[in-house]
Amino acid sequence: MSERRDGSGARDPDEERRYHVDGELVPASGATVSVEDRGFAYGDAAFETLRAYGGEVFRWDAHAARLADTCETLGLDHGLTDADLKARIDETLAANDFRDAYVKLSISRGVQPGTLDPQPEVDPTVVVIAKLLPRGGVDSAPVHDGPAALQTTKTRKPASRALPADAKTHNYLNGILARLELRVTGADEALMLDPDGNVAEGATSNFFFADGTALKTPSLDGPILPGVTRRAVIEIAEAEGIPVEEGTYAPDAVREADEVFLTNSTWEIRPVATVDGIAVDGDGEGVEGPLTALLSRLFDRRVEERYYEGERL
Amino acid sequence: MSERRDGSGARDPDEERRYHVDGELVPASGATVSVEDRGFAYGDAAFETLRAYGGEVFRWDAHAARLADTCETLGLDHGLTDADLKARIDETLAANDFRDAYVKLSISRGVQPGTLDPQPEVDPTVVVIAKLLPRGGVDSAPVHDGPAALQTTKTRKPASRALPADAKTHNYLNGILARLELRVTGADEALMLDPDGNVAEGATSNFFFADGTALKTPSLDGPILPGVTRRAVIEIAEAEGIPVEEGTYAPDAVREADEVFLTNSTWEIRPVATVDGIAVDGDGEGVEGPLTALLSRLFDRRVEERYYEGERL
Repeated sequence: MSERRDGSGARDPDEERRYHVDGELVPASGATVSVEDRGFAYGDAAFETLRAYGGEVFRWDAHAARLADTCETLGLDHGLTDADLKARIDETLAANDFRDAYVKLSISRGVQPGTLDPQPEVDPTVVVIAKLLPRGGVDSAPVHDGPAALQTTKTRKPASRALPADAKTHNYLNGILARLELRVTGADEALMLDPDGNVAEGATSNFFFADGTALKTPSLDGPILPGVTRRAVIEIAEAEGIPVEEGTYAPDAVREADEVFLTNSTWEIRPVATVDGIAVDGDGEGVEGPLTALLSRLFDRRVEERYYEGERL
Repeated sequence: MSERRDGSGARDPDEERRYHVDGELVPASGATVSVEDRGFAYGDAAFETLRAYGGEVFRWDAHAARLADTCETLGLDHGLTDADLKARIDETLAANDFRDAYVKLSISRGVQPGTLDPQPEVDPTVVVIAKLLPRGGVDSAPVHDGPAALQTTKTRKPASRALPADAKTHNYLNGILARLELRVTGADEALMLDPDGNVAEGATSNFFFADGTALKTPSLDGPILPGVTRRAVIEIAEAEGIPVEEGTYAPDAVREADEVFLTNSTWEIRPVATVDGIAVDGDGEGVEGPLTALLSRLFDRRVEERYYEGERL
């Protein structure tokens, strides 16, 4: 992180950082859960990764709705209101004096008697982790490490009848196994296929490509996480009159793409330079294509207007 | 638990219990891991569930070998020897004065910098949990709650190219989702099918059935956990001259079975009374069939001879 643009002044964020665990702000080094917490034992927990801009989390309502959907899928009735959850995030940001940050909110099923069977009575474990993350945005460097190198992995997304793709849970080994395959390739994000061999998404990102006819992204009919940034990008494109198609795409379709990019809450919009070692743009430059650049600029402007309006950055 | 047969005398196991965390014996109530431990964040951990009989864990070598396989799959080079891991289990059993116990040994990838990408340098988190579990066995009550009611679930096992079935990890939501389906049915174990619709296994158990020609169990070619008790039962049956077939079975084959049972380290051999609400034996009695009874008795004898020989129980 090259400069402090977040107003945190001279504080050392590592030394001072506070996390929120079970309703209390605690030093990060002392933020723990029981070894019998079902989040640790089974990955039996829901989570959201969020971006805070100017002290406020981006599209909280969309994250809160998805978190509720995940908990519904898990049969995890935590009993907390969205307002309570948001208050814990806000308290964490305030305690750390973070304005621009990465935030992870997790709700596990907590400790329960017995072993695997989830009990209806839940005393959830609620954890908020926050880390300083200077924003990208107009006239500033993006948060990702430059354009991505994508590599198609042997590890496939599970079918939704095995693990529902629209539930964002602490069962994240599928993505980890995909990332492990990248160690020998030099790529930094996985291009994962669905059980039928069609393009699904990255290990931590949604996938978009453009081929001169439309901006295309795998449909939520497949095992795709309904990304909040994915949705924001579709809305921005549609507002600009750019045709958007959500469909089912074989890997071959991607190889003919003029532009490819990834989205998630942290990266926002991340251009892709290579897919399976082949330059996307065909010119070998690996620079951001014009549509990707336009959408990135429009995304940045929306963030500026919504979260920093009237502020001097 | 109706009687104390484990030699623990008058001690209150809940009050006194000690777990082993990162090389230290700690009170169970203070046994914790960081909220940033990858075991909590992603279920990025390997584990084994073991039975201790007479103060010694059953088939340690088989569990150690499977744990090594799981860690290999996860690319988790924890750097600990099997002897070190066994010593931690033995210390935990000794500290609690447990002779007959349930033991769970977990190795997570610990806390690492960055987010999802697993780093090669690992400072693992090693956790041993132990709970008093009086043994079943010859002339004593079994540890399970009587014969199981099995229900086929909509939740399917994931394909091994999404999550390898032979890796025993803290990503256990697939089994939890299957068990959640049972809430409305009154069944107590899931009968899970593989992606092709063939019989795979239970949420926490391997599946066996007999139809008058052989003892049959799904082959490890499918997404099946290579259970230690499963292997022990196959060995016992073969030693008795009972034909054993490992194959691929459609659900219809199970409906014609004379006997059905489940295996895992805790239950050992658990008879199944009903599958999808229909009595297995056809007589409506739901009692243990003759082959299941024979295998249970032979399993008990092996445990007695190996772990309690020369002792008066």
